[in-house]
Amino acid sequence: MEWMLGSIVAPLGFSAYGMASGIKKEGLDLALISSEKPCTYAGVFTRNSLKAAPLEWNIALLEKKSMISAVLVNSGNANACTGQDGRDAVRESAELLAEIKGIDKESVLLASTGVIGVPLPMMPIRESIRTLAENLGRSTECSQLSAKAIMTTDTYQKEAAVSIEIDGCAIKIGGMAKGSGMIHPNMGTMLAFITTDAYIEQQALQKLLKTSVDDTYNMISVDGDTSTNDMVVLLANGCAGNDVIRYGTTQYRQFEKAFNALNLQLAKSIAADGEGATKLIEVEVAGLSKKEDARKMVHAIISSSLVKTAVFGGDANWGRILCAMGYSQAEFDPRNVDLSFVNNNKAVSLMRRGTPVDFDEHVAKSILEENQINIKVDCNSGWASAKGWGCDLGHDYIKINGSYRT
Amino acid sequence: MEWMLGSIVAPLGFSAYGMASGIKKEGLDLALISSEKPCTYAGVFTRNSLKAAPLEWNIALLEKKSMISAVLVNSGNANACTGQDGRDAVRESAELLAEIKGIDKESVLLASTGVIGVPLPMMPIRESIRTLAENLGRSTECSQLSAKAIMTTDTYQKEAAVSIEIDGCAIKIGGMAKGSGMIHPNMGTMLAFITTDAYIEQQALQKLLKTSVDDTYNMISVDGDTSTNDMVVLLANGCAGNDVIRYGTTQYRQFEKAFNALNLQLAKSIAADGEGATKLIEVEVAGLSKKEDARKMVHAIISSSLVKTAVFGGDANWGRILCAMGYSQAEFDPRNVDLSFVNNNKAVSLMRRGTPVDFDEHVAKSILEENQINIKVDCNSGWASAKGWGCDLGHDYIKINGSYRT
Repeated sequence: MEWMLGSIVAPLGFSAYGMASGIKKEGLDLALISSEKPCTYAGVFTRNSLKAAPLEWNIALLEKKSMISAVLVNSGNANACTGQDGRDAVRESAELLAEIKGIDKESVLLASTGVIGVPLPMMPIRESIRTLAENLGRSTECSQLSAKAIMTTDTYQKEAAVSIEIDGCAIKIGGMAKGSGMIHPNMGTMLAFITTDAYIEQQALQKLLKTSVDDTYNMISVDGDTSTNDMVVLLANGCAGNDVIRYGTTQYRQFEKAFNALNLQLAKSIAADGEGATKLIEVEVAGLSKKEDARKMVHAIISSSLVKTAVFGGDANWGRILCAMGYSQAEFDPRNVDLSFVNNNKAVSLMRRGTPVDFDEHVAKSILEENQINIKVDCNSGWASAKGWGCDLGHDYIKINGSYRT
Repeated sequence: MEWMLGSIVAPLGFSAYGMASGIKKEGLDLALISSEKPCTYAGVFTRNSLKAAPLEWNIALLEKKSMISAVLVNSGNANACTGQDGRDAVRESAELLAEIKGIDKESVLLASTGVIGVPLPMMPIRESIRTLAENLGRSTECSQLSAKAIMTTDTYQKEAAVSIEIDGCAIKIGGMAKGSGMIHPNMGTMLAFITTDAYIEQQALQKLLKTSVDDTYNMISVDGDTSTNDMVVLLANGCAGNDVIRYGTTQYRQFEKAFNALNLQLAKSIAADGEGATKLIEVEVAGLSKKEDARKMVHAIISSSLVKTAVFGGDANWGRILCAMGYSQAEFDPRNVDLSFVNNNKAVSLMRRGTPVDFDEHVAKSILEENQINIKVDCNSGWASAKGWGCDLGHDYIKINGSYRT
């Protein structure tokens, strides 16, 4: 597996473009991804009971197993809680694009991110969609424009691409994502679009995506579960010319490994770009009897505002980590807990078998001052583990919490 | 029922004091509440699986139905995750106080709030406990000192007292509480101590407390469920000379009404004093089929950072409220929702039967600029309702989120 430059246009047959249509007062706000061949499609969507209009559309297409040729994405408006108007806007957008591109409207996916409850203004889309389609390209500039057009409060675009060889055939996977400005994991919209030129059966594609999302986007503190608009979609157009990849085969596992690495890279870049973040926090929990408990514990730690402020302040206030573990609803025995802070070349043990360690504050502080810190927890009572990623909590808010202990 | 000045010393037979013992680098940090007669006692404690050492002690006394004569509280150290040392510190504190006051050590309750995982320094307690006991008094100054000594990041002390007449007998209830600096409901320690001179059976006392806590402290966004140290205790010494109050009687209901009002007052003052808060937010949800669903929905709304920042910024971004309702896991039909902002003399309807209302932005903004705003939700599909209280989210964090929509 090799990392490469580029993103969604790295795989053969995909092109993209992004532009300013006027949905936002200023800046890029409309992106298009297009495939020269129809793609099999997999999708994972928000669990929020209020789903935005484009998500309802995409879910219906997934149920029909539609082949997809294009994805139209706008930022600046979520088209959520917009009733019949919102559904009409989705249909019209798909129809407009289908007509221009000479494709079926049911081969168009849609995504939106931005303010909820305000009608999606159709005029900017009507006026820009032809320009958007006519400028589709495979250059780095084209893919960067599309990655920028889906951003809201992100400070940089998130792109990644990898190349693997399966049975002698070069296969590429590319992706772009947007995070959210939310410090606490509850509502920031997360979108990710992954393309590949692999030929892979649809059923395998959906399983692949579901499994990978659970270990990547669902394990970052900008939590994907709850916005009205969260979605991750994967398009495979088969342009690489490989033999079909079926679920459970060696080829499937080769593809899966590269796919997971790509998603992890995008997910971590979302976590690292949390609002005001200065540090990426990786939390690793091991030694529990249930995977679900390990996930719960990771989530509680990466979501804790007090843990995040302590990391920002460089304060080794590890009691806050224990407290988060305590309310995580994971089953564990506090008397067995090992806890440490680690980074590339240093480590400090804070608790061993449930007993506080008289640690060196200077070493702890020097670890917390790096731009990536790892919190390692071992509950020593089983073989289940989980990893997750979050960020510190910056700004003035920290003046109060960051120095609480010292 | 009449509100009166004073707090925990308003009921007959109770005295208090607070002082600086040196647990904190500076400021008051040790408080004592004492009753001249042994009290029946009710308590509600954190659901965090890691309970601080003093809570383990208090829970054991509750199970034994001990009669209580004194409550010793320190701030500056939580005595949580401190292992056997922590349990020893609790026992020694109770023994020291018992010896000085000539009471049984099992008639002493203990509470702590502050940093987790650091041994509770006993020297300041050993050196100060006699002074503390000798200065107990019933003056306003004494009760204020005790209310200040339990504070951590609170900006003012929280006290309240009420007087009621039951069967011709004057009964008083007093309370003091501390909140937390946490913006998000997950770890800030909440403590509340309520005294009454009523004579009331222990079983009734515990039911009374449990029910009242569910509608008051458990409905504020500085959530009491999850810290290692949260507790609410109620002491009744019978000094008022009334006939015993039993569960379910008219007298019980009279007492309950005043008791709830007092707890609500303290709970709201905790919410209003959230870190950096400038506004108290009241959320009222009605029209659901289950009470539990109504509570979940209230909690989701008052805990949402995006709702809180919107209120701070005076931005009527009501879509964020709908989104929080959507991920609250409460069952409801979005097509039936009414939503409005209300304050004393103004109201603005934002959504009616699931359809966005074209509201007057100026009226909405003027409501959001008041120091208390009410968010009213009616799901129009049942008779269950709930109320809760939170605060806006201030500071620089707002520069990004507060003006997201406009």
